[in-house]
Amino acid sequence: MPEPGSSPERKRRLVVLAGPTAVGKGTVAADIRAHHPEVWISVSATTREPRPGEQNGVHYWFVSTEEFDRMVADGELLEWAVVHGRNRYGTPRQPVDLALASGQPALLEIDLQGARQVRETMPEALFVFLEPPSWEELVRRLVGRGTEGEAERERRLATAREELAAQAEFDVSIVNREVHAAAEELVALMELDAGTAAP
Amino acid sequence: MPEPGSSPERKRRLVVLAGPTAVGKGTVAADIRAHHPEVWISVSATTREPRPGEQNGVHYWFVSTEEFDRMVADGELLEWAVVHGRNRYGTPRQPVDLALASGQPALLEIDLQGARQVRETMPEALFVFLEPPSWEELVRRLVGRGTEGEAERERRLATAREELAAQAEFDVSIVNREVHAAAEELVALMELDAGTAAP
Repeated sequence: MPEPGSSPERKRRLVVLAGPTAVGKGTVAADIRAHHPEVWISVSATTREPRPGEQNGVHYWFVSTEEFDRMVADGELLEWAVVHGRNRYGTPRQPVDLALASGQPALLEIDLQGARQVRETMPEALFVFLEPPSWEELVRRLVGRGTEGEAERERRLATAREELAAQAEFDVSIVNREVHAAAEELVALMELDAGTAAP
Repeated sequence: MPEPGSSPERKRRLVVLAGPTAVGKGTVAADIRAHHPEVWISVSATTREPRPGEQNGVHYWFVSTEEFDRMVADGELLEWAVVHGRNRYGTPRQPVDLALASGQPALLEIDLQGARQVRETMPEALFVFLEPPSWEELVRRLVGRGTEGEAERERRLATAREELAAQAEFDVSIVNREVHAAAEELVALMELDAGTAAP
């Protein structure tokens, strides 16, 4: 809540949306992109191949592993992670700096590992956890339907447990019952947040 | 022209659109933004105030003089210039790097001073000069209608002469007879350019 007497200055905090694998972060971000052009959403760099419909520079920057590693080495990423032991994802730092410096509401949609890194360097950000409507169903999906080997099931169960536990690290949770409603809740939080700039 | 046997790889060159003051660079860029979402256009940072209809993060990043100077000091701008002795404009470096590394057609719409700086650091870019349909009319507009003092008229005339002379430094000229036609010519050049990646 904005404190009484807080100034209406343009200063914004970064808002970080994270949550368990497959909870629907990307879909919520796409809904905000469609309905709220005033919200700037960070475009992650990734080494994975584009999927059909994904546009370079809009959904991701699709770069080579060599270019990604160069950005890591040169400190050009705010956070980065290797997902599923294979593909790298990261947040280019300068666009985020520009958004914050110019008072633009700015959103990062990243994974849990990435959110932890952002907390290290930007603890003043607002961390929003996207929660599945049913943990049981999400765990069932993450762990699989028994067609994998025991080791793989154990690995996935451990990941699911870790992702469940992460919720406690966040400032706010939004339940992703319906995508558009979750997106609107997030935008409302960002607007509210603009009034509570840290001193 | 693409050389025979040139590979169809994704590598792109940066395309720089520059030209005299008031020739209509921004209007041409806006036309490309409206009709060619596949062309990525650099968003300049500036210290001037937004004009009505200008959106932060879309048309410019509106930042403070302090933030601008920090970016200059930290080497975060590809080029920058002080325009009309007052406002600073510059191109954030990382988004351009990301566009080029990911094979995205990328356009910079900047002033002549900025174009010269880009040639120093990225001589492989394609430099496109936007030419007025009539130099006489442009000079008349730049120099003013005789309501200024003699010193001011002389200063503006010198600027106009310098801007005229700059055309020789460019790879290609496009005459801005009609905005949409000029925009389409530029996009066609960018597409052509994609086939002529430097070895």
